[in-house]
Parts: sequence; structure tokens; C-alpha cells
Amino acid sequence: MTEIITAAMIVIGDEILSGRTKDRNIGHLADVMTAIGIDLKEVRIVSDDEADIVEAVNALRQRYTYVFTTGGIGPTHDDITADSIAKAFGVPCEYDEKAFALLGAHYAQRGVEFTESRKRMARMPRGAEHIDNPVSVAPGFRIDNVHVMAGVPSIFQTMLDNVVPTLRTGQKLLSETVHCPFGEGLIGGPLTEIQKAHPDTIIGSYPKYLDGSFWTELVIRARSPEVLDAATREVQSMVDGLAAATA
Amino acid sequence: MTEIITAAMIVIGDEILSGRTKDRNIGHLADVMTAIGIDLKEVRIVSDDEADIVEAVNALRQRYTYVFTTGGIGPTHDDITADSIAKAFGVPCEYDEKAFALLGAHYAQRGVEFTESRKRMARMPRGAEHIDNPVSVAPGFRIDNVHVMAGVPSIFQTMLDNVVPTLRTGQKLLSETVHCPFGEGLIGGPLTEIQKAHPDTIIGSYPKYLDGSFWTELVIRARSPEVLDAATREVQSMVDGLAAATA
Repeated sequence: MTEIITAAMIVIGDEILSGRTKDRNIGHLADVMTAIGIDLKEVRIVSDDEADIVEAVNALRQRYTYVFTTGGIGPTHDDITADSIAKAFGVPCEYDEKAFALLGAHYAQRGVEFTESRKRMARMPRGAEHIDNPVSVAPGFRIDNVHVMAGVPSIFQTMLDNVVPTLRTGQKLLSETVHCPFGEGLIGGPLTEIQKAHPDTIIGSYPKYLDGSFWTELVIRARSPEVLDAATREVQSMVDGLAAATA
Repeated sequence: MTEIITAAMIVIGDEILSGRTKDRNIGHLADVMTAIGIDLKEVRIVSDDEADIVEAVNALRQRYTYVFTTGGIGPTHDDITADSIAKAFGVPCEYDEKAFALLGAHYAQRGVEFTESRKRMARMPRGAEHIDNPVSVAPGFRIDNVHVMAGVPSIFQTMLDNVVPTLRTGQKLLSETVHCPFGEGLIGGPLTEIQKAHPDTIIGSYPKYLDGSFWTELVIRARSPEVLDAATREVQSMVDGLAAATA
């Protein structure tokens, strides 16, 4: 029996909830998790509010193998992620020596003042480990199974690249897609039968609507190539049968 | 004291969590809520799993004025939203007479068989009211403060257009944006002071990273135009002062 590795994501930021910024990190994390065989099971978008962040972190870190957060780790007053994560774990949030030295050197080299605000970016929960940020130095961090990363997409992506090699990964969920020129109303019945006959697969039906008519993308998922193949052939012959019947 | 109206959203669908489909409904709902003065406070993306949907619905409907869901109301076996919402409310999920007649007439007119799968789309929790779907007839529904809508973006948007006039709306949160050519490290300190001096505003700082350097978008939000104006002027003069000092 292969271990199933699960994950959840917490997107932190009023700017996403107000619509001002359109999130681009959820889709990226989803793609990466699927590629490496981790099941992303839940995503929450919460506001810049300590109680909301603490609740989400504590709910999800106990339920899933990994939690990934984005947003709120910059130097301004509305960046409260580090404090909130520390509170969720019941540990102090304090200057991390290594991060402080790293940031201090970075600003000294550029002849830029290491302001109180900038120093804020060196704060993290006691016991956290860095996640390197080659783009703009200020690190993310990991504490237990929670990975805390930046919200700016280019920085998030590079931090995630550094995290991926450290994760346990499961057996990749394989998938096949069958294009179906019919709407869901016609295929729903037979598709239910195929799903019942192949309990080790997950068969998804995704309706697409274009220019007044529906078509459907049928996605068959399984961890075993043989199981996947058998179910996919049945789905394909169901679609072919319908096409012949309506031609 | 103006009433604050809050909302949460639940996006239902494995296809979003796997990355196969990129969500386009969260940003749209966020924009619409902001435009009509409702505070979107939380979004959850959950899989096609009854227990997960029931838990999210029951957690959020008690906490916020309104809940909006997208996805899982089609005719196939993986469309379990109606059953899950009924379970969350502890009522039966059954054929709705009006929806059944509406769908029956629609398919009869097109000479299309009203299959068992298509009949599924007429099922909803007892006591639910329709949300009209001019695109493809099958209605969404509202039960208590929970609005259940389609996941296909064009259908979701037209359903939401039908829902908006039925909502109580609050006083719109006004906003002003100040472009700041400096990174957050430089402005964090003074910005914290301005936020403290203007407690009835929410000042957000959104770092942008382009071609190796940071700039920042500063967004000031308040319900009163006078309060907004006073804080915005202080933020603008802070930025102007920094520009003069570094020129």
C-alpha cells in the first residue's frame, strides 16, 4: 500500500479577498503538487487577521501531511504571518540570528539602511528553519509541517522550488483525459456505472460551455497504470458508442 | 453605525485542487462583493467530498452573513453539491417540482431525452429557492443564507447577477491608491505610524517586484470619505518626502 501524502494551502491577504490582486499562487502550487504526487486537499484564503490565520493553521496542520502558506511576510505593519504562525504553535516570535545577519549583510552591501521595518523580516517562530529566497534575500521558513512563503509570485515560486526536494512524495496519481463531444446530461448515467465498476479510479466530468453548446472533458485518475488503462478504455468506448448512435 | 455585511465563498471541485482547471470565479466574486459593499472574509476550496463540503458549509454559514458556493451542480456522479448542502442543513434532497418542469420542458422543446442524469439537476434541498440560469436552464438555489451556483464561469456570473439584487449590502469600503516607488523596507516604519494615527482606516502595502527592484502599491481603505482623505494625504506626503530626500 503506497502512502498517500496530503497538503493544504493558506493564502493570506486582504488584497486577494478584495479582488484588488488576483491570486496566481494557488494554480501553481496545485500543478506542482500534482506533478510530484502529493494530493492538495484544501485551500483557504484568509484575511490579514491573526485569529483567522491561527485558526486556519491549526485546523489544517493537524489534518494534512503538509501546509503551505503564501503572503504576509514582508516588512510592513500588515505583515503578521510570522507572529500568527508563532502563536499557532505556542512559541515566541523572535529575531532569527542567521536571517538577521543575512539581511544585515545584504543591505550593508547595497549601502541601504537596515531599518526597523527591514529587521522585521528576520523575525520568525523559535525553532523555524529558513527557506531560501534568492530573489530578495528575506527568507521564508518552515516550522514542523508548515511552510511559510512569500506572496509575490516570482518569490513564492523560487521558495517552493527550494522546498520541493525536502518533501516526502507519494505515488503519483496518473491521469488520462477523454474528450467527449456531448454534454453531461447524456453521459451521466453510463459514466456512473463505469465509476462503480472501477472503484480504484476517480472519474471526473468537467463540463465546458462554448457558443451555446456543452462538451465535456472526462478525466480518469488512478495510481496504477493497469487500473487506469482499463477504466479509460471503457470511458472511450462509451463516448465512441454515443457518437455512433447519434451520427 | 452602518451594518457590516460579510461573506464567504466555497469553491467545490477536485479539478481546481489538481491544477487541471484554474479558478476564475474567486476573483470575480471578490470584485462584485467589493463593488456592492460586502466584505468577503474567507474562501475555501474543497474537494468533491461530502464530509468536506458539509464541514465547510456549516462552519461558514454560521459565521458570515452570506455564503456563496460554486461547482458540483451538474448531472454526473461527481456532482454532489446539492446532496451535501441538504445534509449540512439536515433536510432531504429531493426533486424540486418547478425545476423538474422547467428542465423537462427545456429538453422536450429541443427533442432531447430527459435522462436520469439530467433529472439529477432538478434535485435540491427541501425549502430551497431557485437561482435562475438563463444560459443552460438548470437552476442554482438558495437555502437560508447559502447561495449555490454553477462552476462554469459564464453560468456562475449570470447566476450571481441574479443574486446580487437580493442581497443586503453595507456601506461600501472606499479606497485610494498611492503609488510608491520605494520598497517596503523604507516605508514600513512611517506607514505603521500613519496606520496607528488613523485607526478607522485599513492601510495595505502590496510589494511589487519587477526587473530586480521593488516598488509598492499603498492602498488606504475606509468607509468615510473624510477619514479616507485625511489618511491618504498623509501617506502621499510620506512618499513625497522620501522622494525629495532621495532625489
